Amino acid sequence: MPKGWRLAELVERFGGRAIGEADIMQVAPIERAGSAELTFVTHPRYRKELEHTKAAAVILNEALQDATVLPRIVCANPAAYFAHVAALFNPEPAARPGIDPSAVLHPTAMVAASAQVGAHVYIGADVTVGEHAVIEAGCVIGDRAVLGAGIRLYPNVTVYHGCHIGARAILHSGVVIGADGFGLALEDGRWLKIPQIGRVVIGADVEIGANTTVDRGAMDDTVIGEGVKLDNQIQIGHNVRIGAHTAIAACTGIAGSTTIGRQCQIGGAVRIIGHLNIADRTEISAACVITKSIDVAGVYAGFYPFEAHRDWLKNAAHLRHLNELVKRIRELESRVDHLQGGQK
Amino acid sequence: MPKGWRLAELVERFGGRAIGEADIMQVAPIERAGSAELTFVTHPRYRKELEHTKAAAVILNEALQDATVLPRIVCANPAAYFAHVAALFNPEPAARPGIDPSAVLHPTAMVAASAQVGAHVYIGADVTVGEHAVIEAGCVIGDRAVLGAGIRLYPNVTVYHGCHIGARAILHSGVVIGADGFGLALEDGRWLKIPQIGRVVIGADVEIGANTTVDRGAMDDTVIGEGVKLDNQIQIGHNVRIGAHTAIAACTGIAGSTTIGRQCQIGGAVRIIGHLNIADRTEISAACVITKSIDVAGVYAGFYPFEAHRDWLKNAAHLRHLNELVKRIRELESRVDHLQGGQK
Amino acid sequence: MPKGWRLAELVERFGGRAIGEADIMQVAPIERAGSAELTFVTHPRYRKELEHTKAAAVILNEALQDATVLPRIVCANPAAYFAHVAALFNPEPAARPGIDPSAVLHPTAMVAASAQVGAHVYIGADVTVGEHAVIEAGCVIGDRAVLGAGIRLYPNVTVYHGCHIGARAILHSGVVIGADGFGLALEDGRWLKIPQIGRVVIGADVEIGANTTVDRGAMDDTVIGEGVKLDNQIQIGHNVRIGAHTAIAACTGIAGSTTIGRQCQIGGAVRIIGHLNIADRTEISAACVITKSIDVAGVYAGFYPFEAHRDWLKNAAHLRHLNELVKRIRELESRVDHLQGGQK
Repeated sequence: MPKGWRLAELVERFGGRAIGEADIMQVAPIERAGSAELTFVTHPRYRKELEHTKAAAVILNEALQDATVLPRIVCANPAAYFAHVAALFNPEPAARPGIDPSAVLHPTAMVAASAQVGAHVYIGADVTVGEHAVIEAGCVIGDRAVLGAGIRLYPNVTVYHGCHIGARAILHSGVVIGADGFGLALEDGRWLKIPQIGRVVIGADVEIGANTTVDRGAMDDTVIGEGVKLDNQIQIGHNVRIGAHTAIAACTGIAGSTTIGRQCQIGGAVRIIGHLNIADRTEISAACVITKSIDVAGVYAGFYPFEAHRDWLKNAAHLRHLNELVKRIRELESRVDHLQGGQK
Repeated sequence: MPKGWRLAELVERFGGRAIGEADIMQVAPIERAGSAELTFVTHPRYRKELEHTKAAAVILNEALQDATVLPRIVCANPAAYFAHVAALFNPEPAARPGIDPSAVLHPTAMVAASAQVGAHVYIGADVTVGEHAVIEAGCVIGDRAVLGAGIRLYPNVTVYHGCHIGARAILHSGVVIGADGFGLALEDGRWLKIPQIGRVVIGADVEIGANTTVDRGAMDDTVIGEGVKLDNQIQIGHNVRIGAHTAIAACTGIAGSTTIGRQCQIGGAVRIIGHLNIADRTEISAACVITKSIDVAGVYAGFYPFEAHRDWLKNAAHLRHLNELVKRIRELESRVDHLQGGQK
Repeated sequence: MPKGWRLAELVERFGGRAIGEADIMQVAPIERAGSAELTFVTHPRYRKELEHTKAAAVILNEALQDATVLPRIVCANPAAYFAHVAALFNPEPAARPGIDPSAVLHPTAMVAASAQVGAHVYIGADVTVGEHAVIEAGCVIGDRAVLGAGIRLYPNVTVYHGCHIGARAILHSGVVIGADGFGLALEDGRWLKIPQIGRVVIGADVEIGANTTVDRGAMDDTVIGEGVKLDNQIQIGHNVRIGAHTAIAACTGIAGSTTIGRQCQIGGAVRIIGHLNIADRTEISAACVITKSIDVAGVYAGFYPFEAHRDWLKNAAHLRHLNELVKRIRELESRVDHLQGGQK
């Protein structure tokens, strides 16, 4: 029978202060947590759910500590505390050392004995795979790539030749690292391909969501800083640099040679054009189109708000005449100035 | 020689009423249908094409039944009728029972004898694969996944551990079901990963387009209702719930914990933020950004309409001063009120 | 030791005029090019970098030829010249003829002896693979597909049955060619699938970026013209036709049955709805939504410009009242007309 954890044991491990005691087997959301489950609350708006929860115990902050009589852990950052506890109860499965007989490895590939290489994996020439790395079924690793210790590649990930993946990085299925950037030159109405000879260099503790693509640099490298978190279906162009601990939500695209600062938070479906600089700690709301560098950290936004289709038809039609409309207002102001002048 | 179908036979099978007779071997679009091909018309604007078509016969509705002298089938819903006939002439290839020798199956995987498992497939521990299922080359099925009867997985699909795929579901190449949702907590400027321990549960008769991603739930499940149709490159965040028979066009993204109703029609490149509720039968036009729950079914829209680049530069610049512009109008109104008051 | 190239040799091969002489081993960006590296400059704004570069030589145009004393090549189109030289120094690796023992080929597949077939590739019935084709690990080629001479498929590409890929085309990892288009008919609140029986036909010298999807035609074909360049994560709907030498940047989506002209340049994250015609040589800026056919070539644009979040909240709120605002302006104009009439 799996061992439960006492609140006192959790507090000993992760800090905070326990009030009351309970035996915890798993974490759960507040609405359906049961008698062996721990949940958490970060915001006073969940007072009602807190009142009705059947959880064994709750993680909350000082301000909410008296909002329940349940056993509880009081701490400064309940969400982070919950992340630690959830990881304790749900650890990533450890690497199962060994190479599946169906995998094909180039004879010069160097794979740590503690690494796990799944079925139908292909590993190219001069690749290095670190200790405790997990490479799941169907992944393809190009020549000379370097995969750090403790990385996890979910099935069907592709890493092109020469790319570096930092320690403990997690790449989800369908991720493509190091495909050619969109480098073209026009000659007589036809496109010439410019060879893309840079690499992708990914720092430690990065996580990259399913079907995200990170292009290799044209001549220099594309660089993803340590601790960066990329959600699904993100596109990172060639020579982009993303600073450490920046998080980017799904479906965002960043065009070539743009530099994103450290600790930025970028929403989903944001589009950032090329050759820009975005300051450290900038926040960009979902669905924004960023066309100029941002020098001052702040919260930025911009999209057309939705409405009933019939209203949108009426309203949006005027956008094409906005310049003219402003002229009409200026004209009115001058006429009214004139009228009021005449009255004086 | 393949057997043709007489209109009388089609009507016997699918209903409607035949006028005249023809021998049908295939379906085709109205502009190039030939003497053994059946086509269809749904709208009076195709009267001209109807006049010139070389088709053997036409499916049309009551209103158009006299618009041609060709052999024809008259019915209430020509598009649906055509879908039935097209499926009759172009059936999905049946499963070829058996497991390709190159596939790797965990010894505990349970695969129905009538199922087809293609080359280089990997099937994990305790997976169940139903009768007549087709799993094409390069697919990877994680531990404990359940694949229903009659499903079809095109090549290079990935299903993560524990996910359920309902009967007859079709998943196109590059689809990723059950990757981790974007669950993070910030602690001292670094992101902690929150383990994603829910599943993805997909209903019967769902179709999912190429390179679409559906994230597993954080703690509860992500749920795709029966008969839902998802186009290509759609992103579904963790804990999203999509009601039965909703259709969503390509490139749309739905952020975490949003609930979409039944029988909705959502256009391409729509972005729906997290934690919203969208009413049953809501229609959302392409390229909309949905930032608030929709309680009343209707047709919603919203995006900036395109124009010549030089015009856009002039018009869009005013958007950043719209609030000020409204103040100037108010000011003018008050000045004109004053002037007219003075005239009285 | 690898052979360097003299400027005189380059000029002999690619044209232009050499001033001075140098021994070139590689290309590099102007900021970090070293003593055996060639760089290029296209625009006067790089005069400063040109002054400080440590490059062995520079490619530039007539107007800039005296802006440096370095050895240089003077030509009409430095970017194209650079593309040629870069390709000379960084050729695509040649096909290594042979079929990896782990690949699975249907007995009826016809693969040229000079072609390279990687690990865990699957090639279906009656497929044709041309001379010097490269099919990297994990690719899956459906029955009856035709792959032209000199094509390169990076790992984990999927080509569905019956699709044609023209000579020398390059498909990056995760590309899916020929998945079913989104063809549905509604019947009693449920969606019927309309079989997609067209193909995808891709011309010679096309390049397609990572995770891009091109759907097969419903009944006719989807056609990508010769020399077309598609970036990553683009979605091309069924029956779309793209004219020769058009280039499309990442994350753009084109809905079904739209025809794009020749030599168009379409930015990233553009959305083009279905059944439109876009004229030859049209340019569309990033993030545009195109909802009407474009008959006249030109540069088109349109998106909501970003700003500080607090400003956007104030400004965007007025968009829903724009129609009413225009009415208020009209009303003011009429009142002021009346006042000025009264003054006369």
